[in-house]
Amino acid sequence: MLPARGAAAPRGILERLAHGEVVIGDGSFLITLEKRGYVKAGLWTPEAVVEHPEAVRQLHMEFLRAGSNVMQTFTFSASEDNMESKWEEVNAAACDLAREVAGKGDALVAGGVCQSSMYKYHKDEARIKKLFRLQLEVFARKNVDFLIAEYFEHVEEAVWAVEVLKELGKPVAVTMCIGPQGDMHGVTPGACAVELAKAGADIVGVNCRFGPETSLQTLRLMKQGLGAAGLSPHLMAQPLGFHTPDCGRGGFVDLPEYPFGLEPRVATRWDIQKYAREAYNLGVRYIGGCCGFEPYHIRAIAEELAPERGFLPPASEKHGSWGSGLDMHTKPWIRARARREHWENLLPASGRPFCPSLSKPDI
Amino acid sequence: MLPARGAAAPRGILERLAHGEVVIGDGSFLITLEKRGYVKAGLWTPEAVVEHPEAVRQLHMEFLRAGSNVMQTFTFSASEDNMESKWEEVNAAACDLAREVAGKGDALVAGGVCQSSMYKYHKDEARIKKLFRLQLEVFARKNVDFLIAEYFEHVEEAVWAVEVLKELGKPVAVTMCIGPQGDMHGVTPGACAVELAKAGADIVGVNCRFGPETSLQTLRLMKQGLGAAGLSPHLMAQPLGFHTPDCGRGGFVDLPEYPFGLEPRVATRWDIQKYAREAYNLGVRYIGGCCGFEPYHIRAIAEELAPERGFLPPASEKHGSWGSGLDMHTKPWIRARARREHWENLLPASGRPFCPSLSKPDI
Amino acid sequence: MLPARGAAAPRGILERLAHGEVVIGDGSFLITLEKRGYVKAGLWTPEAVVEHPEAVRQLHMEFLRAGSNVMQTFTFSASEDNMESKWEEVNAAACDLAREVAGKGDALVAGGVCQSSMYKYHKDEARIKKLFRLQLEVFARKNVDFLIAEYFEHVEEAVWAVEVLKELGKPVAVTMCIGPQGDMHGVTPGACAVELAKAGADIVGVNCRFGPETSLQTLRLMKQGLGAAGLSPHLMAQPLGFHTPDCGRGGFVDLPEYPFGLEPRVATRWDIQKYAREAYNLGVRYIGGCCGFEPYHIRAIAEELAPERGFLPPASEKHGSWGSGLDMHTKPWIRARARREHWENLLPASGRPFCPSLSKPDI
Amino acid sequence: MLPARGAAAPRGILERLAHGEVVIGDGSFLITLEKRGYVKAGLWTPEAVVEHPEAVRQLHMEFLRAGSNVMQTFTFSASEDNMESKWEEVNAAACDLAREVAGKGDALVAGGVCQSSMYKYHKDEARIKKLFRLQLEVFARKNVDFLIAEYFEHVEEAVWAVEVLKELGKPVAVTMCIGPQGDMHGVTPGACAVELAKAGADIVGVNCRFGPETSLQTLRLMKQGLGAAGLSPHLMAQPLGFHTPDCGRGGFVDLPEYPFGLEPRVATRWDIQKYAREAYNLGVRYIGGCCGFEPYHIRAIAEELAPERGFLPPASEKHGSWGSGLDMHTKPWIRARARREHWENLLPASGRPFCPSLSKPDI
Repeated sequence: MLPARGAAAPRGILERLAHGEVVIGDGSFLITLEKRGYVKAGLWTPEAVVEHPEAVRQLHMEFLRAGSNVMQTFTFSASEDNMESKWEEVNAAACDLAREVAGKGDALVAGGVCQSSMYKYHKDEARIKKLFRLQLEVFARKNVDFLIAEYFEHVEEAVWAVEVLKELGKPVAVTMCIGPQGDMHGVTPGACAVELAKAGADIVGVNCRFGPETSLQTLRLMKQGLGAAGLSPHLMAQPLGFHTPDCGRGGFVDLPEYPFGLEPRVATRWDIQKYAREAYNLGVRYIGGCCGFEPYHIRAIAEELAPERGFLPPASEKHGSWGSGLDMHTKPWIRARARREHWENLLPASGRPFCPSLSKPDI
Repeated sequence: MLPARGAAAPRGILERLAHGEVVIGDGSFLITLEKRGYVKAGLWTPEAVVEHPEAVRQLHMEFLRAGSNVMQTFTFSASEDNMESKWEEVNAAACDLAREVAGKGDALVAGGVCQSSMYKYHKDEARIKKLFRLQLEVFARKNVDFLIAEYFEHVEEAVWAVEVLKELGKPVAVTMCIGPQGDMHGVTPGACAVELAKAGADIVGVNCRFGPETSLQTLRLMKQGLGAAGLSPHLMAQPLGFHTPDCGRGGFVDLPEYPFGLEPRVATRWDIQKYAREAYNLGVRYIGGCCGFEPYHIRAIAEELAPERGFLPPASEKHGSWGSGLDMHTKPWIRARARREHWENLLPASGRPFCPSLSKPDI
Repeated sequence: MLPARGAAAPRGILERLAHGEVVIGDGSFLITLEKRGYVKAGLWTPEAVVEHPEAVRQLHMEFLRAGSNVMQTFTFSASEDNMESKWEEVNAAACDLAREVAGKGDALVAGGVCQSSMYKYHKDEARIKKLFRLQLEVFARKNVDFLIAEYFEHVEEAVWAVEVLKELGKPVAVTMCIGPQGDMHGVTPGACAVELAKAGADIVGVNCRFGPETSLQTLRLMKQGLGAAGLSPHLMAQPLGFHTPDCGRGGFVDLPEYPFGLEPRVATRWDIQKYAREAYNLGVRYIGGCCGFEPYHIRAIAEELAPERGFLPPASEKHGSWGSGLDMHTKPWIRARARREHWENLLPASGRPFCPSLSKPDI
Repeated sequence: MLPARGAAAPRGILERLAHGEVVIGDGSFLITLEKRGYVKAGLWTPEAVVEHPEAVRQLHMEFLRAGSNVMQTFTFSASEDNMESKWEEVNAAACDLAREVAGKGDALVAGGVCQSSMYKYHKDEARIKKLFRLQLEVFARKNVDFLIAEYFEHVEEAVWAVEVLKELGKPVAVTMCIGPQGDMHGVTPGACAVELAKAGADIVGVNCRFGPETSLQTLRLMKQGLGAAGLSPHLMAQPLGFHTPDCGRGGFVDLPEYPFGLEPRVATRWDIQKYAREAYNLGVRYIGGCCGFEPYHIRAIAEELAPERGFLPPASEKHGSWGSGLDMHTKPWIRARARREHWENLLPASGRPFCPSLSKPDI
């Protein structure tokens, strides 16, 4: 296997996908930086890019080392409605950080917007589009490589976002935070995907709110809907790094464990290798993660798909495939774990015998 | 509550403990940096301090912001037997990083040694003491504030480490990685603690291998042994951030999930608040963590003991006590989680209905 | 509340149901008598009626005391294809036992047939109908009160059974052992119910293979299908006494625990009270159980619906409602369990921390 | 393997044990007849022997068929303090029922007494001994084969019972309902066993309150104590048929599931085969069960120890060893379960993903 790809000028996102290349996304920023002490849960805003840029830069670096081909600007919720006058400085600084790290490897910069805080109160297309356009102006000035509209509960608002982002003339990806039951108005995943593709999105998929298995179910429904409509945008998956078989329509935010008791649900690296393989088999070529996806989860995607991609990510220098780093251990029963069968078949215990295995959503 | 303490010249570890102050330790380096891509599992050596100092510095900073009063040099296993010629450079660089970050807050630098790789093969006191002495020379040159000998399975080797470290004339803390069943030769926790105190350790306790609840059981036995012997060194707890009720004598390394399937066992911040309170009630005043203890776990100690200490750590500016940051959420059922009762009584589900809650150790 | 109804001449099944009366079915014979030592698992034939009539009589008596209004002849699989020449004697003896016990209370005798062993190999309507007709001749001679065709996987064969049973001119009930996914050919529950009602069944429903919750989902789908077709036969539920949320189309026989490891799945009496209430609310008026339904589960139906029915069953003389029999206990913490809130909210532990909570079906 | 032993005149209990023969006890009466509708929980008295003798006779028969060599009179709590004037009639009828059934196989009749309701209020030796003596007079008149004093929480009262029962000159067995923590005054299992043997008990052991695994731990401690004292009475185990790893000193009555939510804890037949083997290996030769031990559990003991005993019990005609009865099933994946490996390694799921695996005792 070859070493990780060097610093050749990166090709564009659509060029890569058109050639059947696997593009590895990045992972969790809000939840991960909350645990590191830089983001406040509840608000979930990215002021850390100006307050503690070294912490954000470090996380970008970890994802780059893990194999990410996309440095998404840390601009989630960084719109005028959520951050008031700070929004512009935050968007600009986030672009600079993403570009700085992307330049150290084979990664593109993606400017990211997400659903507004307004849509649930009123559906004022003009006001909401203006919010997207303000962020887009910063992304234009900073010359990001492509755009991502993510975390939409309502397909109508996602369509608006796509329409605005398309104005820049760069590739546009869009992901909804929905599960197999569809959006908050009951629009099915298939119908959502069709609307988004028709609105001009080059890449369509899901992010956040549901774990890897559930997200791939949703994506399967999206693919069926697109196929029936004769559409074939590229597919993208950025699920949670948490197991959520017990979620309802609203996803993990409705579980009583959200957001401060999700620990027992964190996926292992082996769960993620399984996810990466299944996503690949489904035809998804933009494969990343969202909340709960730590750098080692991204590395697990890169390692699982290394045969197809032809190289390992830099961080694999610190990781033996399928636990092989344990083969020198002095205790023979630990050495015996240095093999794929052990980890692939492991059913990890919770260590919590007084806890259930599933929860009932609060709604 | 007062803001975090400013940059007054830090007092020494024994002075603090003598005044009944709570000293908050730091958390997980090896396991955490493994997940971030900088440490190789199986080897578990800290070459990252020279290869990627920014990653180590960042983790130190996160612990400092979370409330740690100790920056332990990242020198675990950095002895000549494990790292050959690189050991000296690594020890020196680790001291510099720890000092640099400690200087930004109210923290001391502790030089750390751990059990050798030799003891299990031969019990050559002279050779093993020489290993400790080599690291100690670097710590002396770098003028660390105090010393920690940690992760000893055999009390005999721990005594040797204490004897060497005492030569420098600085305070010495020592922790064993044992559970309630005692060391690998069956020496009880109480007897271990007595031997270590008699060898001159100023601070005695446990670290690693067992979760918070089990570690406090062990410490309780240590305290009883010390009391019966009329000894009263300061007590120190640095347990795993994992729940391990199913461990045998050898601790978590014997569980089939070690080290790549431990995710469902990760403690919540609320579990750690409970641990901090119980440790405090037991009379422990040096309270930190080991593998699996992320920055937010350390912050949980600082927040739980804020009433006693009189201040919150810097990272609490990004954390509402007991989930209070959720009280502005737009969804009323999520707002309803912004209270202590919710999180204190939560029995978090694993999201893994095909997995057991306990494992049988491999040995 | 009145004592159990006396020995007035029992009214017919349809007369009762037409008056909105709740008819309580009986419970488990094969699985229960297997545990008592009289039935062989795998064969599942009822030769016990001739070999050990006292054991069968005793179980009938227990269900009668528990509140059953139907003594179903223990003739499951007692057809010529399964029992060769013994079949006729077994059917006759089973009728006599059922009638003997029914006469001691307010119960009707129902002659029962089930799916043949032939249908899965060939679909020879004439041969299969002949099997049903042979059993029916015995039921005619013994003058049972009504007929039940049960445990059909394929709606086509169930229709044949209904057509044969209708020849006698007595009321006919029919239940399929299907779940929400429908029969083995993918006919939906709604479509199955419509076909059965059109074939002339007076009572339509489900029995066996799925637990109470799943069976009520199936019945809900049946009711919807019937409603859409303008049909309104009486509804009947006789689910397993086991929890089976993890079943696929084939039901509990496909679980690795079937049939000798189902213990942890056994429903509590409180689970059954919940089932009885939900079945009643759904409009089901013939409410009983199948495999795993012990006498105390039937009593739980009778106790839950005592307010609607106006009386308690005889066996309630040995049972305090909602645990009230504990109110004299000498230990106060056990007395504290003598209340509805305790039992209604109890989440009973398995006592098996090394076991999962769900299984994957073998197929 | 030989068929079950015929109707030869049964040898005495001590003669059998002296020859190293395995004596199989019977199982659960109170809990089992509660579920069948004949015993009231909370009171737990055996008036069924006069009210519904056929139900009690049937249960005796099931245990006899399953392999029991002892028909214990159903006289639990049937002392004057619990049953007032009815006590004498109940004891006499219970003896007759036990003798009637014992005569149909190779079984002895054992007259049984249990702890009084008085001891916890006052320790009036004379009054309590008088209670035992009243029951003993009936047992003498009915000429039972030997005597069992069972379910003692306090070793002092158990000694009194032994002293009274010895007066008749028949063999005396005694079992305490204690766990590894010892009796309610903290007397260790070893010390309890020594006192009981010194008081003259021929057979010493445990019954009820704790599951099979825990009970064998207690018995192991008893055996050690007896060995250290140079005593060697025969050993006897009659544990619960429930798994109770989470019990405290008081056993299962302190669990919130007691007595109406214990279902998920019921042992499988395979659990009981494992228990029988381990009991045998520990040197226990009187092996039976208590609450929750159904007839098929007793059969599991007889089947596991059939190689040692040389014959199978009558009820094995309805049971294929290790699931072999499934080998004719039409579905190949069910046939695949007709083998020891399947059942021996099965970790049965609870079907209850919202429930924990352990409970905290109420005290």
